[in-house]
Amino acid sequence: MSAGHSVETAQLPSDFIDAMRSMVGSSNFKQGSAVDTVDHGVTAGNLGAAAIVFPESSEQIAAIVKCANAHGVSIVTHGGRTGLVGGALSQPGQIIVSTARLNRIVQFSAVERVAVVEAGVTLQALQEAIVDHGLEPGIDLPSRGSATIGGMVSTNAGGISAFRYGVMRHRVLGLEAVLPDGSIYSDLTRVVKNAAGYDLKHLFIGAEGTLGIVTRVAVKLEPSPTSVATALFGLPSVEAALEATRLALAAQYGHLRAAEAIWHSFFKLTSEEHAWSASDYKADCPVNLLLSLGGADEEQLQHELGRLYEMLAGTYEDISAVLASSQAQQSQLWRLREDTDLIYRRHAAAPSFDVSVPLSEIDAYVHRCMSELRELDPSLDPYLFGHIADGNLHIVLNAASSDLSMEQSASVERIIYRDIAKIGGSFSAEHGIGSKRIHSLKMTSDPVKLALMQKIKGQLDGMKTFNPGKVTG
Amino acid sequence: MSAGHSVETAQLPSDFIDAMRSMVGSSNFKQGSAVDTVDHGVTAGNLGAAAIVFPESSEQIAAIVKCANAHGVSIVTHGGRTGLVGGALSQPGQIIVSTARLNRIVQFSAVERVAVVEAGVTLQALQEAIVDHGLEPGIDLPSRGSATIGGMVSTNAGGISAFRYGVMRHRVLGLEAVLPDGSIYSDLTRVVKNAAGYDLKHLFIGAEGTLGIVTRVAVKLEPSPTSVATALFGLPSVEAALEATRLALAAQYGHLRAAEAIWHSFFKLTSEEHAWSASDYKADCPVNLLLSLGGADEEQLQHELGRLYEMLAGTYEDISAVLASSQAQQSQLWRLREDTDLIYRRHAAAPSFDVSVPLSEIDAYVHRCMSELRELDPSLDPYLFGHIADGNLHIVLNAASSDLSMEQSASVERIIYRDIAKIGGSFSAEHGIGSKRIHSLKMTSDPVKLALMQKIKGQLDGMKTFNPGKVTG
Repeated sequence: MSAGHSVETAQLPSDFIDAMRSMVGSSNFKQGSAVDTVDHGVTAGNLGAAAIVFPESSEQIAAIVKCANAHGVSIVTHGGRTGLVGGALSQPGQIIVSTARLNRIVQFSAVERVAVVEAGVTLQALQEAIVDHGLEPGIDLPSRGSATIGGMVSTNAGGISAFRYGVMRHRVLGLEAVLPDGSIYSDLTRVVKNAAGYDLKHLFIGAEGTLGIVTRVAVKLEPSPTSVATALFGLPSVEAALEATRLALAAQYGHLRAAEAIWHSFFKLTSEEHAWSASDYKADCPVNLLLSLGGADEEQLQHELGRLYEMLAGTYEDISAVLASSQAQQSQLWRLREDTDLIYRRHAAAPSFDVSVPLSEIDAYVHRCMSELRELDPSLDPYLFGHIADGNLHIVLNAASSDLSMEQSASVERIIYRDIAKIGGSFSAEHGIGSKRIHSLKMTSDPVKLALMQKIKGQLDGMKTFNPGKVTG
Repeated sequence: MSAGHSVETAQLPSDFIDAMRSMVGSSNFKQGSAVDTVDHGVTAGNLGAAAIVFPESSEQIAAIVKCANAHGVSIVTHGGRTGLVGGALSQPGQIIVSTARLNRIVQFSAVERVAVVEAGVTLQALQEAIVDHGLEPGIDLPSRGSATIGGMVSTNAGGISAFRYGVMRHRVLGLEAVLPDGSIYSDLTRVVKNAAGYDLKHLFIGAEGTLGIVTRVAVKLEPSPTSVATALFGLPSVEAALEATRLALAAQYGHLRAAEAIWHSFFKLTSEEHAWSASDYKADCPVNLLLSLGGADEEQLQHELGRLYEMLAGTYEDISAVLASSQAQQSQLWRLREDTDLIYRRHAAAPSFDVSVPLSEIDAYVHRCMSELRELDPSLDPYLFGHIADGNLHIVLNAASSDLSMEQSASVERIIYRDIAKIGGSFSAEHGIGSKRIHSLKMTSDPVKLALMQKIKGQLDGMKTFNPGKVTG
């Protein structure tokens, strides 16, 4: 690999490399085999460029961009490299701009409930900096240790609290970004109400580094509850899970923090692997629902979960539940939802999908997909789980990607994405487009929107300096 | 006025007028004196064009736009005409497109907590359609009876719940808009998680009709509490008001619905006018804070307000409070905050300002402004009130606009807007730019942002068909 890198890196002009070194210092520019010490994240292809620069400021990034333009070199910006759709892939002849050294929390005020951070600050670093003030960022992801705030902004990250606090776009009060011409867009307001002209920061949020390099972000924070209670409900239907969610949203005590649905096949996988069981819990029910309430008093939260259960039991038969009575038990319940690695260990690179479906459409959508997939191949029994309060479903095939022919893969995608825009959903809920989903974006989106995306890209980055080949193709 | 209209309308080409009539029917096109029956809203200048078309569908609007382009006629779109910064002003030779007939609630699902509405639906009509399902739009304004959802989207409306549910931008899940070329941008997703390419709906939100005509909106709804309790706290300082807000946000029972600060001079005005007083309430305190908590049980909410008061009393001296013990008393307290008309009855067209200030900067900002205004003219003692949980302050001068020289007016504006961007605030929190605030936008904004706004406007609407002379000038 390192030999390959050396050859490939030769494609970067030597005076460009010299300029990078003099801008950031030799130790902050890596190429060839030196890149092998860098964690490539989800896929080795992320480091395909084999040339990385580690700037320490927005001004350095602006200078790098101008220099790259002058040399016709294109830029792929990297945060934590946790993206799942190839948004960070790079190629020989490109330069990777890493935000790793932009890792300062610039400003934090508990009174304001706002933190201004540099793009390379990880979600976990932000969480740890504010936890003692009783605050949280209002967004959380399993990849918190690697995922950076800049990356989360660029991909408009989602997570489990989106039904309550919105997605990353809704957490951003202000933003600074370097534009493709090397100018710095600076709108670091720390207020939620801002009607001062077009709010163009939204162009950079979710654009996956194709329109700007996000360098600083003012993040809105939320008070975190002092107690959390969690229960797992075994339910007969999606309808029952939605009704449970509705009741939990209208909780008389505390507030809903998470409503995660786990359909049977995935529940079977994780519960068996972790040898989880609970007396009276009907582990073979169609839908399992993990509910967490947050509030001041744990006992009252648990009581409220019990009350919700009684209300549900008045409407639905065949339900069961288990209430976590300790932090350890809560973690055990969460593992049943979050240990998705299990799937990939059994089915290498199992094709996975990340869709948003309006809540009233989930039941019909799931039935249609499952039945059509079984028709395609009777052995298909996908793992299904997701954030039911916002309709974000994750569907992972119980098959290695190599088990499927090109044709079968295309059929699977057609089944899962068909009509998703028509019913008011989204074929890409929180993973983005990157390089993998461009075809699907074109297949499912309004042509007027697609044309406007191209226009905007053309206007801001006519030379295609930023992350070429991603999102807009 | 009507004679003037007739003359002015002559500037619209007669074949354009014929085309309008044949598109929408004669009764849905008004010109000249017929326009006088239309409510002009905040200012008569809104109807300056004296020609209004009332389409009933997005397709009709698209056809109108194409026809206007062909005839070189520019368009001013009207919702409820409640805007305060001249965004709806129109001139002879222009055509007003009213969304009044786009008044259908297209889709509503209590399970989804989403409503899809046409642009001309008023906030109040939406509220009334969903209230029996225990839902609310998560945004509320005093002008709810006139303000339309389309107008609220176009101006990115704010209101009292923004600290909790965001501004209008954060309530919009999906949107349909007619573009300046007459094409229809259609993205009526009903889900919060959508990472399917650039989220260009945000271009149209807050653009005040200069980039698109919003025709349909998918609005996120929130569960409304069954009970609300309200108290008024008399406090010694901004710091105490912020601490009270922080405690209320972390309420052990219920959740904060509103935190409205009323500084002394405005409180004096409204409390004297309405002959409001309460025993033991120190009406001469510097800051009055109206707190509303929502939840399941009114008695427990009142108890929680009492607990907050006790906690505050442990930290601050000279505080007092009154707890509303009935709906009527709650309304009386709210009137002390909301009867802003009183100001304008005393001081005709009193200059008013609508700024966002980061919470930790409010105290210093208010002190600086008040002291500099007094220096400018010792008789100035502005009315000050606002949404303290999000830093949105309204400042209204205790002077008629005619009392001030041009020079004085400019000085006042300089004092109030100076450094507002630098401290992370916004000179226009929720009222927008319209035609009145263009100069201030240019004075306070990042030049890179301003240049990008012009580029975007130029690209989407190079012919300046949509609301020319507004926002981007």
